[in-house]
Amino acid sequence: MINYTATYTDKYQLSMAQVYFLKGQRETRAVFDYFFRKLPFNGGYAIFAGLDDLLKTLEILRFDQRDLEYLKDVGFHPDFLSFLKDFRFTGNIYSSREGDLVFPIRPVLQVEANIIEAQIIETLLLNILNFQTLVATKASRMRRAAGDRNLTDFGLRRAQGPGGYYASRAAFIGGINSTSNVRAAMDFHIPVSGTMAHSFIQSYDDELAAFNHFAEVNPNDCILVLDTYETLKSGLPNAITVAKKMEEKGQRLYGVRLDSGDLAYLAKETRVRLDNENLNYVKIAVSNQLDEYIIKSLLDQQAPIDAFGVGTSLVTGHPDGALDGVYKLAFANGKPRIKLSENVSKITLPHKKQVFRISENDDRFVGADAVAIDGEPDLDIMHHAMYPLKSLSLAKYAKEPLLLKVMEKGQRLIDSESLSEVAQYSRQRLAKLPEEYKRFDNPHIYKVGISTKLQSERDKLINEYKK
Amino acid sequence: MINYTATYTDKYQLSMAQVYFLKGQRETRAVFDYFFRKLPFNGGYAIFAGLDDLLKTLEILRFDQRDLEYLKDVGFHPDFLSFLKDFRFTGNIYSSREGDLVFPIRPVLQVEANIIEAQIIETLLLNILNFQTLVATKASRMRRAAGDRNLTDFGLRRAQGPGGYYASRAAFIGGINSTSNVRAAMDFHIPVSGTMAHSFIQSYDDELAAFNHFAEVNPNDCILVLDTYETLKSGLPNAITVAKKMEEKGQRLYGVRLDSGDLAYLAKETRVRLDNENLNYVKIAVSNQLDEYIIKSLLDQQAPIDAFGVGTSLVTGHPDGALDGVYKLAFANGKPRIKLSENVSKITLPHKKQVFRISENDDRFVGADAVAIDGEPDLDIMHHAMYPLKSLSLAKYAKEPLLLKVMEKGQRLIDSESLSEVAQYSRQRLAKLPEEYKRFDNPHIYKVGISTKLQSERDKLINEYKK
Repeated sequence: MINYTATYTDKYQLSMAQVYFLKGQRETRAVFDYFFRKLPFNGGYAIFAGLDDLLKTLEILRFDQRDLEYLKDVGFHPDFLSFLKDFRFTGNIYSSREGDLVFPIRPVLQVEANIIEAQIIETLLLNILNFQTLVATKASRMRRAAGDRNLTDFGLRRAQGPGGYYASRAAFIGGINSTSNVRAAMDFHIPVSGTMAHSFIQSYDDELAAFNHFAEVNPNDCILVLDTYETLKSGLPNAITVAKKMEEKGQRLYGVRLDSGDLAYLAKETRVRLDNENLNYVKIAVSNQLDEYIIKSLLDQQAPIDAFGVGTSLVTGHPDGALDGVYKLAFANGKPRIKLSENVSKITLPHKKQVFRISENDDRFVGADAVAIDGEPDLDIMHHAMYPLKSLSLAKYAKEPLLLKVMEKGQRLIDSESLSEVAQYSRQRLAKLPEEYKRFDNPHIYKVGISTKLQSERDKLINEYKK
Repeated sequence: MINYTATYTDKYQLSMAQVYFLKGQRETRAVFDYFFRKLPFNGGYAIFAGLDDLLKTLEILRFDQRDLEYLKDVGFHPDFLSFLKDFRFTGNIYSSREGDLVFPIRPVLQVEANIIEAQIIETLLLNILNFQTLVATKASRMRRAAGDRNLTDFGLRRAQGPGGYYASRAAFIGGINSTSNVRAAMDFHIPVSGTMAHSFIQSYDDELAAFNHFAEVNPNDCILVLDTYETLKSGLPNAITVAKKMEEKGQRLYGVRLDSGDLAYLAKETRVRLDNENLNYVKIAVSNQLDEYIIKSLLDQQAPIDAFGVGTSLVTGHPDGALDGVYKLAFANGKPRIKLSENVSKITLPHKKQVFRISENDDRFVGADAVAIDGEPDLDIMHHAMYPLKSLSLAKYAKEPLLLKVMEKGQRLIDSESLSEVAQYSRQRLAKLPEEYKRFDNPHIYKVGISTKLQSERDKLINEYKK
């Protein structure tokens, strides 16, 4: 749906690219790391999402005529504009698999390219991956809270503009069952679903007439919203009347939706009254500002809820609103590169790297990823990135390389997977992570360490710059 | 940039529309109110934004062939699909002016249309207006904190996907001076700006060489980022060297940027050292997770900062992340309509309405908007929407009608204003609001009241439904 061109970037990317271009760095090769520093939602893991959209976009990214005219107007150099006219991304991408669990500090993805190209795509890359990873992670948390109950995305109306389109995609990777967002459902092959709004009922002179019409047109997936006037005194009795009438026609009312009031209490009351009418099959859906904590609380209270409609907090990744992913130079002009900082945790890792997931021999994740310089032989130890004395012996564990070459010279090496496949992969990976990393309160901290060689290379560079 | 078609909606809009279509409500006229219930950021006002995008989209909104095939696949009725094939929005829109101050409960915008059309556009309307109003309001708060210092949007990398495109637009309405977002700058005619990234400096073997190259290519707007290695020991001395060298060529270093560490302390140190070198003209810009509170704190500390680069919290409207705007039926089938709720504050206002802003005769806003039934004669009193005994006499005040007919039968009645005009209008309106409504902590509560006739019509409907 989004018509990306290469001006979908920050101006400074183009300013820097122009300097590289005019000052003899046209051929400079560089490696940039995409990583984040803090897990969203104070959680124990994040779900990587957005890769397929990134790759699709990189394959077609161009400056069009309008872009070039605008850049001329704002003062870019004619020679640089001629260069941009033929701009293509021709670099390599090494990436974690979409849907995999990712953790702070370690590269989630690496770009190896001409430094001009690598710089121009930075903003686009961050914009796509930061947001989708945030929302996939949020969805995964809601899925955890909801167990195997139905979880539907209702968020488009409160989404951040067209961000809502990709939010639905990312949410499906993270674990929702369906979305109300028709356009996203169509484009990304997500099951589409929906119920009815209060306005539908208000437009009739009485609620029962509205329910009857809706059920007549939608006999197979009729979900009646109960709280337009009064949930227990009006909505529920009318829904029961409709359900009985449907039974006479050999049909079944699919469900009812509670959208205000005390959802735990109302769900229990609704269940009892439906069951008393032998309507055990009618499902109860709830909505209204739900997040993973409210879902958990409702189920902790034994509320007999079959389906949750989640909106704002899912599609905006509330309360975080953003993943703090960054894109840092690790190698350029034949040399490893580093960024120092007074905040030790912000010092970057130089060199092109590989990341290994450490697993038990039974395939369960140990809770550690090790970062090494690309091409290092089998690791037997990893060190804490900041506290050199803390280390973990890796000898007895399996090590799975996580960064795969997914694009070479601007051409995709991997096919686009279906979103169901990505979601399934994500759930398989999450199943291998011990429970303590998944809990909401003070989850166990997943270890990300560095190899001995990377540690010494980094420290050597720090010392050089300190001089 | 966004290719909206009419499937940019929630599925239930189409399900309800289909029932209206098949059950004899093809000709039903309806009025829907767009309003919100809570001011964002615990603030005292909101800035309405997004109207022009909404109107542009409504004018071209269609179901394309792909949409229709998809809707057929998911089971919509052939007759309804034929109808959708020719779908156009042919209704009327009554709206607040874009950039105006808006407040809870009162309609910000009204849609008067065939109920099918009105329902189909609901999600799109909410998606556009909720987000842009949120971000324009956030920008306005940052503008207040920053005074007349430069305020630039750097947020695209952390924005919610393509939401960042509209975030830059809304931020300009709310008060930023410029954006780094090239695409938004180009399309919306926002001044574009930017500095340099750490990676640029890292790619060189030494910082000074990088600064020199950048200054040579960008002599007119060179802003050097100081904290790649060490702000005061490396970045600043190197920037001073560059500035001196530029002076020899008759050029001036535009500024320096501080992006980490204690920004108040570093800004003061940087200012002193620059001034000691007679570089009083070199501006100091700061960035790094700024919001209105941090900007205020920096300036309360007398930090000599000339420009603020704001990112994540601006473009995502943090911490709220969403405006709670809703779209509620007020009139249909020749009758006023209401939604009840156990929560009294959620009962809606029936009828097509007009909203009046109450002003002193010197043009200052009194701090009150009055909602009346459309066509009511001059109001002399307004009542609190929930507490009937609270009222305000309006006799001595000027009353400005706020909802203007901006679209008739699907055709715009107002031209697209330039974004600068909208921003300027917004600032004029804000200037009329007394200061107590603008402060961050416990701002004065703007009153929104209803006319005597609206109150009695609403109460009559409540009583009817209670029976």
